[in-house]
Amino acid sequence: MEEIVYYIAVFGTIAFAISGALHAMNQRFDPFGVFIIGFATAVGGGTVRDVLLGQPVFWLVDPIYIYVIIAGSILAIVFRTRLNHLRKTLLFFDTIGLGLYTIIGVQIGLNAELDYVSCVALGTLTGSFGGVLRDILINQIPVIFKKEIYATVSILGGSIYILLQSLNVPNIYQQLIPSILIIVVRFLIIYFKVSLPTIYRN
Amino acid sequence: MEEIVYYIAVFGTIAFAISGALHAMNQRFDPFGVFIIGFATAVGGGTVRDVLLGQPVFWLVDPIYIYVIIAGSILAIVFRTRLNHLRKTLLFFDTIGLGLYTIIGVQIGLNAELDYVSCVALGTLTGSFGGVLRDILINQIPVIFKKEIYATVSILGGSIYILLQSLNVPNIYQQLIPSILIIVVRFLIIYFKVSLPTIYRN
Amino acid sequence: MEEIVYYIAVFGTIAFAISGALHAMNQRFDPFGVFIIGFATAVGGGTVRDVLLGQPVFWLVDPIYIYVIIAGSILAIVFRTRLNHLRKTLLFFDTIGLGLYTIIGVQIGLNAELDYVSCVALGTLTGSFGGVLRDILINQIPVIFKKEIYATVSILGGSIYILLQSLNVPNIYQQLIPSILIIVVRFLIIYFKVSLPTIYRN
Repeated sequence: MEEIVYYIAVFGTIAFAISGALHAMNQRFDPFGVFIIGFATAVGGGTVRDVLLGQPVFWLVDPIYIYVIIAGSILAIVFRTRLNHLRKTLLFFDTIGLGLYTIIGVQIGLNAELDYVSCVALGTLTGSFGGVLRDILINQIPVIFKKEIYATVSILGGSIYILLQSLNVPNIYQQLIPSILIIVVRFLIIYFKVSLPTIYRN
Repeated sequence: MEEIVYYIAVFGTIAFAISGALHAMNQRFDPFGVFIIGFATAVGGGTVRDVLLGQPVFWLVDPIYIYVIIAGSILAIVFRTRLNHLRKTLLFFDTIGLGLYTIIGVQIGLNAELDYVSCVALGTLTGSFGGVLRDILINQIPVIFKKEIYATVSILGGSIYILLQSLNVPNIYQQLIPSILIIVVRFLIIYFKVSLPTIYRN
Repeated sequence: MEEIVYYIAVFGTIAFAISGALHAMNQRFDPFGVFIIGFATAVGGGTVRDVLLGQPVFWLVDPIYIYVIIAGSILAIVFRTRLNHLRKTLLFFDTIGLGLYTIIGVQIGLNAELDYVSCVALGTLTGSFGGVLRDILINQIPVIFKKEIYATVSILGGSIYILLQSLNVPNIYQQLIPSILIIVVRFLIIYFKVSLPTIYRN
């Protein structure tokens, strides 16, 4: 299981990097800027997680992530026109990343013997901070605050993961069920254009 | 004393959370965005303090702060119209928070055996970074750089705390005097609309 | 050698602080805002480096940097009109800072036994993050993403440093050659207005 998570984490990293790089090209950043935004989107969540725990960040310890992000950025630059038509494919990877990163974040919180609510917070940050950082760097109000209920899904998935674990569900289902749930619910939300209820009158 | 500081810190956290949530609602963020901005405003300063010292952040270690911020955000959403008329009440809590967080930051610096000037810097960051983070997240130039002399008061209070401690003033006065001083001076500044002398000719 | 690096690091800090302070005054910040932007520009890179490694930041451990930044900000305020005519002088110090900070960052990565690519990433962040932070705080898209090939030069210099070290070149040349290279190449780039090749058709 550990090994599968690792491969999919790397896979999620490529997807996040491509997503960030496309955003940067829409703002006409130069190639280095494209890489930086791809980098920030891909490692932002995990970096915040490690920094909050006061430990060295994962991508300095294991440089595979840097290589993968360079590859993703080059892919995004080369296949620029095509990938913009493939927005749905990207959203697919992005959502897989969200699901898996959330679970990884919660797991790391549990390993550090944090309280359950702290673990869910850590999982949500790991899953969603990359997108926030991307939007801050290209100087826009982060989309997470405005339109999407991205993080709400992540909180839900992280909570279910902890529930399954305290119920002693077999290990593989503990991680699979909430990951798939996050992915499916997020697609349903996008498909049916669900959003959180407004608190404003008009 | 430790226990009193803890309760007032929790109290200050609610106030900061409400202040952040109201700012977010003025920008018409969705409920989750409102919570996030409230969260960032409330824990921003202490988080930066812990991260700069390379230790796990306080709100992951003690989840009471997360509960308190959720409560503060819900309060702000429910009593939205009323609280906007109560700006002065908020400013009151915000200022109490500034005073106490500054002293807590300086204390943690002293515990880590840092130089005095580093302790004051740490106290000022603890007291004022939450507001900076709030403004960055809602994409405005932080008010601290433009109009208020917020941080100047914090630096003054932190310095006096260290002075009192090196003079061996009894423990309770060490913390009370600079806290109250920060709170009073800041109110005087707002009341009399004092600002730092301008360095520009027109 | 260690001692020389220390003195020049302090020197680079003044230059970065002056550069940040001038940017802040162009935006008509108050004196405290000018100091904060100078501070962020000067210590931003090294702070990110220490935070990513999970260790206490250098300017809390050694407060000389805070004094030096206060001095630099005051200098910038006092000699405001003159220094704006001295942009080339500033660019000179800024570039020296970039060169030296890159090498220091790579070195610290090597001391932490990181992979080579991680060391170069750490060096580049140390050299260039201060400018990014400055631009974020004054609410502009960081210049590094748009016009300059600042970081590219830093990556090049860091890589050459590692190459020289693995070739067992004498210690003093290991650090001098890439530092000077970064400084010279960056001046040539500015002089000849080189930029990274565009990836956009118009």
